[in-house]
Amino acid sequence: MRQLDAIFANPRLRPVLPMLYVAWADGQLTNHELGGIYSQLEPWLTPACKAEIDPWLNPADPPSAIELQQLLGRLRAEAAALSLDARGDLVDLGLELARADADARELEWLGPKVEDALRDLRDALGFMGHDAISEIVPVHVAPAPVIAPAPFDLQLLNRLLDGPYADHKRKIRDGLAELDWGYQYEVSKEDFRGSTTDRVRKLAELGWGAFAFPGVTSDGDLGHFVATFESLGFYDLSLVIKYGVQFGLWGGSVYFLGTEKHHRKYLPRIASMELPGCFAMSELGHGSNVRDVETLVVYDPATDEFVVNTPTESARKEWIGNAARDGQMATVFAQLRVGEHDHGVHAFIVPLRNADGTVVPNVRIEDCGHKVGLNGVDNGKIWFDNLRIPRENMLDRYASVDDNGDYQSPIASSGKRFFTMLGTLVGGRVAVGSAGLAATKSALTIATRYATQRRQFGPNEAAEVPIIQYRSHQLRLLPRIAKTYALSFAFQDLVSEFIGSVDKEDKQELEALAAGLKSYGTWFANETIQECREACGGQGYLSINRFASLREDADIFATFEGDNTVLMQLVAKSRLTTFKNNFSEPGLFGVVRFIARQASAVVTETNPYTSRQTDSAHLRSADLHLAALKYRDDYLTQTLARRFKRRLDDGMTPFDALNDCQDHFLSLAYAHIEFEVYRSFAKAVAEVADPAVRTVLETLRALYGLDCMQQQMGWFMEAGTVEPPKARAIRTEINMICGELAPNARHLVDAFLIPDSLLAAPIAVGGPT
Amino acid sequence: MRQLDAIFANPRLRPVLPMLYVAWADGQLTNHELGGIYSQLEPWLTPACKAEIDPWLNPADPPSAIELQQLLGRLRAEAAALSLDARGDLVDLGLELARADADARELEWLGPKVEDALRDLRDALGFMGHDAISEIVPVHVAPAPVIAPAPFDLQLLNRLLDGPYADHKRKIRDGLAELDWGYQYEVSKEDFRGSTTDRVRKLAELGWGAFAFPGVTSDGDLGHFVATFESLGFYDLSLVIKYGVQFGLWGGSVYFLGTEKHHRKYLPRIASMELPGCFAMSELGHGSNVRDVETLVVYDPATDEFVVNTPTESARKEWIGNAARDGQMATVFAQLRVGEHDHGVHAFIVPLRNADGTVVPNVRIEDCGHKVGLNGVDNGKIWFDNLRIPRENMLDRYASVDDNGDYQSPIASSGKRFFTMLGTLVGGRVAVGSAGLAATKSALTIATRYATQRRQFGPNEAAEVPIIQYRSHQLRLLPRIAKTYALSFAFQDLVSEFIGSVDKEDKQELEALAAGLKSYGTWFANETIQECREACGGQGYLSINRFASLREDADIFATFEGDNTVLMQLVAKSRLTTFKNNFSEPGLFGVVRFIARQASAVVTETNPYTSRQTDSAHLRSADLHLAALKYRDDYLTQTLARRFKRRLDDGMTPFDALNDCQDHFLSLAYAHIEFEVYRSFAKAVAEVADPAVRTVLETLRALYGLDCMQQQMGWFMEAGTVEPPKARAIRTEINMICGELAPNARHLVDAFLIPDSLLAAPIAVGGPT
Repeated sequence: MRQLDAIFANPRLRPVLPMLYVAWADGQLTNHELGGIYSQLEPWLTPACKAEIDPWLNPADPPSAIELQQLLGRLRAEAAALSLDARGDLVDLGLELARADADARELEWLGPKVEDALRDLRDALGFMGHDAISEIVPVHVAPAPVIAPAPFDLQLLNRLLDGPYADHKRKIRDGLAELDWGYQYEVSKEDFRGSTTDRVRKLAELGWGAFAFPGVTSDGDLGHFVATFESLGFYDLSLVIKYGVQFGLWGGSVYFLGTEKHHRKYLPRIASMELPGCFAMSELGHGSNVRDVETLVVYDPATDEFVVNTPTESARKEWIGNAARDGQMATVFAQLRVGEHDHGVHAFIVPLRNADGTVVPNVRIEDCGHKVGLNGVDNGKIWFDNLRIPRENMLDRYASVDDNGDYQSPIASSGKRFFTMLGTLVGGRVAVGSAGLAATKSALTIATRYATQRRQFGPNEAAEVPIIQYRSHQLRLLPRIAKTYALSFAFQDLVSEFIGSVDKEDKQELEALAAGLKSYGTWFANETIQECREACGGQGYLSINRFASLREDADIFATFEGDNTVLMQLVAKSRLTTFKNNFSEPGLFGVVRFIARQASAVVTETNPYTSRQTDSAHLRSADLHLAALKYRDDYLTQTLARRFKRRLDDGMTPFDALNDCQDHFLSLAYAHIEFEVYRSFAKAVAEVADPAVRTVLETLRALYGLDCMQQQMGWFMEAGTVEPPKARAIRTEINMICGELAPNARHLVDAFLIPDSLLAAPIAVGGPT
Repeated sequence: MRQLDAIFANPRLRPVLPMLYVAWADGQLTNHELGGIYSQLEPWLTPACKAEIDPWLNPADPPSAIELQQLLGRLRAEAAALSLDARGDLVDLGLELARADADARELEWLGPKVEDALRDLRDALGFMGHDAISEIVPVHVAPAPVIAPAPFDLQLLNRLLDGPYADHKRKIRDGLAELDWGYQYEVSKEDFRGSTTDRVRKLAELGWGAFAFPGVTSDGDLGHFVATFESLGFYDLSLVIKYGVQFGLWGGSVYFLGTEKHHRKYLPRIASMELPGCFAMSELGHGSNVRDVETLVVYDPATDEFVVNTPTESARKEWIGNAARDGQMATVFAQLRVGEHDHGVHAFIVPLRNADGTVVPNVRIEDCGHKVGLNGVDNGKIWFDNLRIPRENMLDRYASVDDNGDYQSPIASSGKRFFTMLGTLVGGRVAVGSAGLAATKSALTIATRYATQRRQFGPNEAAEVPIIQYRSHQLRLLPRIAKTYALSFAFQDLVSEFIGSVDKEDKQELEALAAGLKSYGTWFANETIQECREACGGQGYLSINRFASLREDADIFATFEGDNTVLMQLVAKSRLTTFKNNFSEPGLFGVVRFIARQASAVVTETNPYTSRQTDSAHLRSADLHLAALKYRDDYLTQTLARRFKRRLDDGMTPFDALNDCQDHFLSLAYAHIEFEVYRSFAKAVAEVADPAVRTVLETLRALYGLDCMQQQMGWFMEAGTVEPPKARAIRTEINMICGELAPNARHLVDAFLIPDSLLAAPIAVGGPT
């Protein structure tokens, strides 16, 4: 019969009682473990002791659930009366329990020998450290720290992140918050399309559409246009895209490819949304390969008109935004035939619907249907059947048919002409990339706020801790926040270059950067939104908490305005050539032409000293990251050139040679863009005067740099840039930086200054707050 | 004045005409390039020649678009009449053009000296290889190969993939196809819930619900139940989850946690869907940390009843499937208090609704609302306010309150009891992982079919090629197909272990494997569905093509049945201990106890020979992959044990020490699971007798093994397992294997034997077919 009072009354048994409980609670005592207990107890157990403890140590008759409960209750009650060192373990607790009930004689007995025996017993049972004690004596941990005020100026940080258009961006964000449209989900496609159209009209009324046409509409300012597009991304991406289709693509094609007569006739009505229109480039058969679109426009000298046709099913215009419901006109990209000559792809203004919404004759339109996301945008398919349009409807900035019916172009080479026309549309990629970044910022803001409030698990018997305190959670969010900061500065630089390049013919570098940043940024957006959804657990899965629309809408950013994989190959091709006119060309003229030069360049030597250096100052230095990322970019360029040339020399066709090196092309593009992003970030940080803001930005820059290296560690080690001790040091440094930044995680996302009303409803968090 | 006829008529000019065209088409001729041309032409240009060519070489007055067009047209026409070697370049074309028009005297002039001069000219202009010629002379490429019949037996391959339950799985797939429910999207939440409920009723009618309760219902067979759950995943994941909630969670909790009286009373009505019910475990405040749920059940001896309460808002039951609309009863997990003792979490059968659908008194239910996906499932929130239930409603397999009102349990330790109860629910993770794999297979099938049909780009002027021929596209799909094969075998082994373990108490290994495979597999599902969506471009974005629902539904698989990040930490903890009862415990008893043993184990030495070996046979061998993946698993285990112990020795609390090593825990878990998956795959492949099937499986196994190594290359190099030449060789080998498998890509996914009617509508592909 087990007696609880008896064993607690016996001073010689008291020291082992904590271990007795833990041994049973931890599972069933085995005979082997039992042997250990007895051999340790032997020296001080009197026969009376033995009789009392025996019933508690019988594997054939273990204590019942209730008895264990009672044992625990008694231990807790006695322990509560002791003043225990929080760092104590089962041995200390045992000794204290014995001392509490011992007279002087027993205290002598309780000497170092007993302490050693207890220690041996603890080890024999396999109890290590002080964790086993925590069920009996609660570990006292300080409650999770309250979020302290930001140690840096959030307003200043925001101005730096938002750059030259910070005021305008803020005006747009605040304007959106004031419009108070609320966040929509679980709404039918038709209703969503209707409200999106209404909202674009409202934006046009506010004059936000007119930003797109400098020199034509008052308030025209491309910087303001891109900043508006980006900032709308904090609210709803359907609205962003509908806005972009109307003013950026439809209006932009008229603005950039047309001439004054078109500007005068159309742009004011486009800016006011009086004339909703489309940008009809993609076809079912040709998305990425625009040069081979099949829609055919033939000049008819008899009537001085163009005749537009969809010659095959694969030539139907596909995915055309604004087409299914609203568009009255479209810029149609088609092969132009004049007489016996085919002149390649040109753009024409084509009517689709009358003002009453009826479709014009010789045009057929169908709805593309329900999509993964962006259901506020009415994408449609369009077919043309001998549709006649006047000659003046050709957008004739780069080519025209003259009064004699002769084709004219200031650009003789059809290839160059094609890419010059396409180059004017680079703004689309700049804008889409920026809006993707806004979506990323929304997701990170929601997830980081949740992480600083939601508690789960914690030290035994102590308060649960906010999940941002978990290293794994820090690693999910903080490197992504750092990358988001980096991208903010990279997009600032891209936008500046875009604004500065509008009148330049040679835009190759801008196009490469826009293509690369759009891809790098939108892939990152998709991955981050998903990670943030998961980081909010089930709450992230509720539509009301916004990840649904963020992810579903942003998804297609990886595909439209140029498929990311295709764009990244263009970035790499551009690295292989300095030839100004060949960027974007699916053919390989430029690449083949300059590759020999690149292939013979000397591959930079890695520095054997820094490949081993591991001190924190070095690991966080911009010098290290810039050198490493630049080295990777250069090395991949030169080795790709050699690899490619070797294949050509072996008689492979350029097409096959490129395909054989395609993984290398993609790696190079990624490396190049990452270097460019880092460079933008580092440059911006170096210019910051405010010490507190500079410190936090330097830490974020270091995190981004190290994370880039970490993500490609296999490559850096293969190339000898990093040796194993440094690889380990980088991992440790990333952990350390995350730990440093975590207490300010909330401030880092609050610096995006997204108005609360544009974010989701505050996520239900639960748990004691 | 430029004369086309004149320059073509002059035999001395004819050799340079192709280069003349390319030079202008490629961009504008610079004065520098012009100098090059003249210096090469000088030796053979008569003054007459010079007069004729001069107008074509004036940078100040370049040829017009029309003139270039005409030059090209003439060159094409003349070239078409020549018999040219397809491998020729601009030099050969020039020589042939000259020869075609030359008399004997001129032919003499056309000697090696001219050929050298032309070659120099070509190089001076920077035209390399034969790409520049392709606009003039179309490169003749063989049309893309038609998909050949599979060189292996698809039926056999399918039987291997589907394993012991292949017949049953096929029966379910075919049964679903026959039900012909069609694929739903753009349907309201209410309608979707209604149809999903109707369908679960239909499945119950077919007897598919009764699979879940062997020994109670006829047809009971857990293997068939899991196989059914998995196979439903080919159709619709809302249906899968609703089916799983009803039979697996609600029914399963009664089956596994209840005793005969509960089985008799409830299971037949659960199997028939007469009694729809819920599994009410998660609370707002406690998702992952189930041990701390707050719902309170107090035994009232006066009435011999339990009283159920939701004491705080964070204790509301959250996310409960079947609750918002259909559930009439629920298994509620709550803290049990009997008298003065708290006994931890126990399960109780609690009424929610009357048969007429009205909610019972003392219960409040709210709809969780619209979700990212799975909107066919009615998740709800539940509050209890002094709800009284009879004593018999306690699910009493592991604990009960006896007729005297005393608590009884065959498991004394409350911790062990809790994990034993939870352990019975391991089937949920097995099933969810399997269904995630079905979703992965659907996505890969749709994307691979598209990739073999969709054409885009190609050699200049030749047919566009199917996108599966692009290396980058192969790298998107084929390693994922290989991993899907690997997972199919790993889940077969997991299901076998699950079936074999039902009556065993010690399930730690099974639980670790189930937790790990569920996480590894569902993360992979999400990532793969996204990649497949992108690989189908815009078409992948149409809801009708199914990626919308696949991704939105499968998303939450990473969170429910255990958050993946939390589960992976359990996997790692289980690696750190051999102690049987401590798996799943958020506390650290077991870990701390056995860590010393692990920490002192000798870290395996890497083999310096194989770290450099690069031959293909070695790279593809299971020996290499098994050794590498096992090494990683063991090494991470031992170094983690040391790292963890060092922190404890330094006085960190176990909670802080774990948090400080959390990245290491996650890496270890991933490494361990990857090794287990590979082992299952390799074991299965080694047993295949059919040579053709074995060959393709060996190739897929090699691809999976190499891809695992490649993904963690930084680690393998850091550890010295792989040296740089081998890292490069692995990259090359992966490319090579993808090239080998690509022609059979379609067959590899067709082997999943998903009925067409369960897949999406065939994606519109476009382009010439």
